[in-house]
Amino acid sequence: MQADINELVEKARQAKAASKKLAFTPTKVKNDALAAIAQALLDREDMILHNNQKDYKEAEASGMSEAMLDRLMLNSSRLKGISDDVKIVAALPDPVGEVIEERTLPNGLLLSKRRVPLGVIGAIYESRPNVTVDISVLCLKSGNAVILRGGKEAYRSNLALANTIQEAAYKAGIPSGAVQFIESTDRGLVDNMLKLKESIDLMIPRGGAALIKFVKDNASMAVVAGGIGVCHAYVDKTADIAKAVAITYNAKVQRPTVCNALDCVLVHKDIAAAFLPVMAKEWDKAGVEMHCDQRTLEILKSVHGLNVHPAVEDDWGKEFLALVGAIKVVGSLDEALEHIEHYGSGHSEAIISEDKNSIDRFLNEVDAACVYANASTRFTDGSQFGMGAEIGISTQKFHARGPMALREITSYKWCIRGNGQVRP
Amino acid sequence: MQADINELVEKARQAKAASKKLAFTPTKVKNDALAAIAQALLDREDMILHNNQKDYKEAEASGMSEAMLDRLMLNSSRLKGISDDVKIVAALPDPVGEVIEERTLPNGLLLSKRRVPLGVIGAIYESRPNVTVDISVLCLKSGNAVILRGGKEAYRSNLALANTIQEAAYKAGIPSGAVQFIESTDRGLVDNMLKLKESIDLMIPRGGAALIKFVKDNASMAVVAGGIGVCHAYVDKTADIAKAVAITYNAKVQRPTVCNALDCVLVHKDIAAAFLPVMAKEWDKAGVEMHCDQRTLEILKSVHGLNVHPAVEDDWGKEFLALVGAIKVVGSLDEALEHIEHYGSGHSEAIISEDKNSIDRFLNEVDAACVYANASTRFTDGSQFGMGAEIGISTQKFHARGPMALREITSYKWCIRGNGQVRP
Repeated sequence: MQADINELVEKARQAKAASKKLAFTPTKVKNDALAAIAQALLDREDMILHNNQKDYKEAEASGMSEAMLDRLMLNSSRLKGISDDVKIVAALPDPVGEVIEERTLPNGLLLSKRRVPLGVIGAIYESRPNVTVDISVLCLKSGNAVILRGGKEAYRSNLALANTIQEAAYKAGIPSGAVQFIESTDRGLVDNMLKLKESIDLMIPRGGAALIKFVKDNASMAVVAGGIGVCHAYVDKTADIAKAVAITYNAKVQRPTVCNALDCVLVHKDIAAAFLPVMAKEWDKAGVEMHCDQRTLEILKSVHGLNVHPAVEDDWGKEFLALVGAIKVVGSLDEALEHIEHYGSGHSEAIISEDKNSIDRFLNEVDAACVYANASTRFTDGSQFGMGAEIGISTQKFHARGPMALREITSYKWCIRGNGQVRP
Repeated sequence: MQADINELVEKARQAKAASKKLAFTPTKVKNDALAAIAQALLDREDMILHNNQKDYKEAEASGMSEAMLDRLMLNSSRLKGISDDVKIVAALPDPVGEVIEERTLPNGLLLSKRRVPLGVIGAIYESRPNVTVDISVLCLKSGNAVILRGGKEAYRSNLALANTIQEAAYKAGIPSGAVQFIESTDRGLVDNMLKLKESIDLMIPRGGAALIKFVKDNASMAVVAGGIGVCHAYVDKTADIAKAVAITYNAKVQRPTVCNALDCVLVHKDIAAAFLPVMAKEWDKAGVEMHCDQRTLEILKSVHGLNVHPAVEDDWGKEFLALVGAIKVVGSLDEALEHIEHYGSGHSEAIISEDKNSIDRFLNEVDAACVYANASTRFTDGSQFGMGAEIGISTQKFHARGPMALREITSYKWCIRGNGQVRP
């Protein structure tokens, strides 16, 4: 363990040193490095997939669930997709140096607010190996050094990817040390990482609720946490039923294991009898288990063969991450808003409505990172928002909120040019 | 003490409840409230000054320094100034609802990034009573509730100001409970305040280094800290000597007790002999004590009667907050940059130079909230930057950097309008 701590501290020190150079590395060098990384991922496919297969077999033998195995698995086409994503980030504008605001004060001082990197980003994440690449390239492009600490299950895959990134990046002129991969997967090491506020400027935990809470409670540096999504869709009395069915189906079923998947449907009482049986039949075809309040059960009892259960208190505010959904009939928009305020996690919330006032109230009043009118919560995603990729989805209000990509891992500084001004 | 804790917890709860309404309070109501506060400060002058005089006499009797007494003291014209500042904030645009970014995605989703309040701001501050007003009105205008915890020395003044603000604001339609003043001045209570992450979204400590460190180390919620300014001016070999003398004099002498005052002058060796004697004579007239490196001492020994001392290691990186300055001769811009990186606090740094390349390098490479070329560091101030006032000066990169006013105590949310879009 002491050797692991020494490795960690030394790598963090190297990252900090590299970050000071990376902050001034020209855009062209960074873009060339990203292009080289994209190419290297393809060139080294055999080595990467070979390591991934070892991880996969070990995980399979240890009894990992199908869903988790699928997240771990790389193949030729997935690797191609990851490589393509790197090219997309390369093509985005460099956030560093961007002038956010500029003005001349009455005394002639020229004030310019310019975007700068944060420094060193620490990322603690779980099984998906593509995260290693996403986070590395977002950090490099935004002038930040990065310290990667991936999950044990994907250790060989992550190491293979990190080595590929490091080799390609340094050869292309990225300051050596800018991408650090922590080799030890000892869980205790996370605690040591959280103490390194002198060398890590921001910690981003991506994973389960326990990991996120541990990082938030124990980090000595800034943390942007998120990823816990208890997402609601409120079907207003004026909803277009076809849209409401399509949106709730997509949000619940299209990829149930992710944070922006739907957890709970709130239905206005005036539309419940018309809407719920249609939705329930669709959900049932996809194998969704429904946890329903009493009024929903009443309505759905006419539909045979559904997998319905009476909801218990614990079903409200639960992130299911599975083909399970909670359903509740509400008396009004206000009741829906109260439910969401009480049980939501501030991630993604949706209203389905044809009434402008209800939509406006919902968009204004729901306090969440992403609030949707007549669209699926599944769109909460950096790539979908045109940000190229994402380093995480923040559910906090502080620093950045919602999908975080390049700009969200920067800060700014004020540059002031004068010609001798002094303060009266 | 338990009664104090109960008071604190209950006031925090009230602030949180009020913040949910204040987030949607119309701009006009907020502006009218600020106008009413500005007027009430004038109307209740007698009561406010009477309470301030009690604080002042007690502080004087307890042996408070002249500088601190001056910060504590209110009079008719200062109160008028505070009232005028409230009007300036009232006239600024409302940050809440501002559309920061808006675009339509290829799938037709309309993405809109809108500014929202943070929620409840906790402010812990020391003796200047005007801070009570500045922070309250910035919070109200930006839709945030505020919990004020002022210094013991200004207790009666702060209470009188807070009561004036509360009465005027609530009468004008601000949700009751939006401005909370903690009456107990027990130091132990700060620790309890730092635990209230459920009801306080952001903590802003304003005061000495010990307070700031305590808050950073112990807060369960987000903190924006700053106010520690170890500020340098680098006089380049190409500097205009008249400008350099005027700027270093202003930055050191105009108000030595504040965080943006100059602490250390770094002078290029090629200009040291011409510049230092002129600067030293000016500083000497103002009574500045100079702590000099060996090369500076050599140069200044020709000037008689200066209050010069050999610098000790502790003088570098020290925030003097007094008519004391450190002076060092450096061999190059690079040496100056290294010195600032090592000893600076990331607050305000200046170069005086006529060389474009040196200026650009300094502005780019110095990692501080505010970096100046040919102007005094004393301009680092929300009012000076056209922000109306300031709630503090952040020296961290996270969330906000430099002077913080209305926008800097907001977050944003993403509002997404669709017409049935689902994720493929």
